Amino acid sequence: MPLPDLATAPYPSAAGSLSDLAAVDAAILDAVDQLPPRIRTVAKYHLGFSSGPRPAEHRGKALRPRLALAAARCGPTPERAVAAAVSVELLHGFSLLHDDIMDGDRTRRGRAAAWVVHGVPAALLTGDALLTLALGVLADSGSAECMRVCVRMMSALVRGQGNDLAFEDDQQVTVDAYLEMAEGKTGALTGAACELAATLAGAPPVVVEALERFGRHAGMAFQIADDILGIWGDSRRTGKPVGSDLAARKKTLPVVAALHAADPEAGQLRALLDTGVPLTEAQTQRATVLVGQLGGRTTAEAIAQQHLDLALEALQCCDLPAGAREELRTLAHHMAARSR
Amino acid sequence: MPLPDLATAPYPSAAGSLSDLAAVDAAILDAVDQLPPRIRTVAKYHLGFSSGPRPAEHRGKALRPRLALAAARCGPTPERAVAAAVSVELLHGFSLLHDDIMDGDRTRRGRAAAWVVHGVPAALLTGDALLTLALGVLADSGSAECMRVCVRMMSALVRGQGNDLAFEDDQQVTVDAYLEMAEGKTGALTGAACELAATLAGAPPVVVEALERFGRHAGMAFQIADDILGIWGDSRRTGKPVGSDLAARKKTLPVVAALHAADPEAGQLRALLDTGVPLTEAQTQRATVLVGQLGGRTTAEAIAQQHLDLALEALQCCDLPAGAREELRTLAHHMAARSR
Repeated sequence: MPLPDLATAPYPSAAGSLSDLAAVDAAILDAVDQLPPRIRTVAKYHLGFSSGPRPAEHRGKALRPRLALAAARCGPTPERAVAAAVSVELLHGFSLLHDDIMDGDRTRRGRAAAWVVHGVPAALLTGDALLTLALGVLADSGSAECMRVCVRMMSALVRGQGNDLAFEDDQQVTVDAYLEMAEGKTGALTGAACELAATLAGAPPVVVEALERFGRHAGMAFQIADDILGIWGDSRRTGKPVGSDLAARKKTLPVVAALHAADPEAGQLRALLDTGVPLTEAQTQRATVLVGQLGGRTTAEAIAQQHLDLALEALQCCDLPAGAREELRTLAHHMAARSR
Repeated sequence: MPLPDLATAPYPSAAGSLSDLAAVDAAILDAVDQLPPRIRTVAKYHLGFSSGPRPAEHRGKALRPRLALAAARCGPTPERAVAAAVSVELLHGFSLLHDDIMDGDRTRRGRAAAWVVHGVPAALLTGDALLTLALGVLADSGSAECMRVCVRMMSALVRGQGNDLAFEDDQQVTVDAYLEMAEGKTGALTGAACELAATLAGAPPVVVEALERFGRHAGMAFQIADDILGIWGDSRRTGKPVGSDLAARKKTLPVVAALHAADPEAGQLRALLDTGVPLTEAQTQRATVLVGQLGGRTTAEAIAQQHLDLALEALQCCDLPAGAREELRTLAHHMAARSR
């Protein structure tokens, strides 16, 4: 069976959603066009707009705007929530630009990372610029609550990334510490995407709270699926080199879980990862086998399923329009069972 | 005559102002203490809090909080403006952390820059963290207007730093382009310091507008004085190596003005600065002489004086409490006539 075309968005959506995404893209492009020339170039490159409207494979999965647009349908004024979709996409761009510099990641969405092409100074400043644009969009939305949500989210993001940096030198990272880090780095923003959108759409507080929880847990399931793809994914579909996470000795969930298995082979895995330098191809293959044998994949899949269940549970705890609930449910399933 | 002790704050202030600064410092320390351990360490180092209360020489000039505290005295609720002083100091910290990485500046306040000591990833993330803290303080202040002022200021900051980065490869930078860049990098934040403080202190719009203008022009005078010190300053007092700005071929105002002088020696200066590599000590000395002979210093001093005049003029255009006006005037004079 041939692989599906990467340009085909793998996330099915309710009718109209692709045109909504196009409206979000248009608003992002408008915002980016206000930037000074050099930063604008980097921003367009990073966001995939380099030549006119961005093709689907450069847009990325547009997961956070999709979450925002779907959550917005749970309130009486969904049209106001375009600002939420725009700002979370910009915030995501800010976070990726800075993270790729901090983590030394050279590849993003199958292309060279912005700092590799445009240098660290320009990429760093473009991150600051996208954050500023996101804050401007939220400030213009006129909701003081949205600004507080955004600051809380940024705080979680910084904390999560701080933990992630600390993990590099820490051989004892626990599964709980990993999950806390992932909640900061990923769950906070997917939760905020839903929370901001529902707030702007005028949903009642109980719905806003439930959707924040939904987005956070769906984001966790997504992140863990990403970790699994980072080890066992198909590089033609993920846009990342095969085994790159393991080669870079990243402490993703399968690895952390495997290292804590009560099995002598955990010691072998630790020895492989403790060298302080990137793994060779043979070492990466050996580590991949060990992580699987030590139950790292099984544990990660089980925890992803728990988060998917918690996300779906959140959708049941209050009264939501049936169409919106169904769309959010479908989105969550796809986030947890992604192939790229 | 012996040099004055660096630890003696060179900015005279009204009675009570030093204890206000101590209150600002305490609030900053409280905020920083909320950060995760590794980022907290970097933040404390950068802000000079490494060991308990920060000594004056590590606090820096605390210029932006001083402006905020003085401007706050022009409204009926000056005590509310501590949030403005805290947030502008945190915003300044954010901007310095990122700028030092982008510009490759290895020295800050007479010590190694944070990225040199703690690495680029941790310094970059600490910049994001200080920005987040600043936004949190402003969000807590409950003023939507303050958030808009902050976003506008960040926008100007990004634009100014973008221009500054572009200057590196541009041999034709004009005096006007330089002034626009400096207004973004320095004037925007000193203007915002006054604007945020006056807003929170409840000053009427006409006063807020005048104080913003005051702060912006005083900041410009300060920045140009900084440029002059960067070439002709005493390194024991500036904390920077002698001639470091010229050696690094930075396009500061005296240099830009000298390069545009209608004099054949401008070509000699251009040739020295066009090499693409840092200048030797002999080249730096020669360039310093040329910039002076070409009138770079005289022009810079004249423009600084214009900005000082505009700042003082802003203080005259509305009704301000006499004590506050006097304090702001004194502060502006010291900013324009600094020796470190």
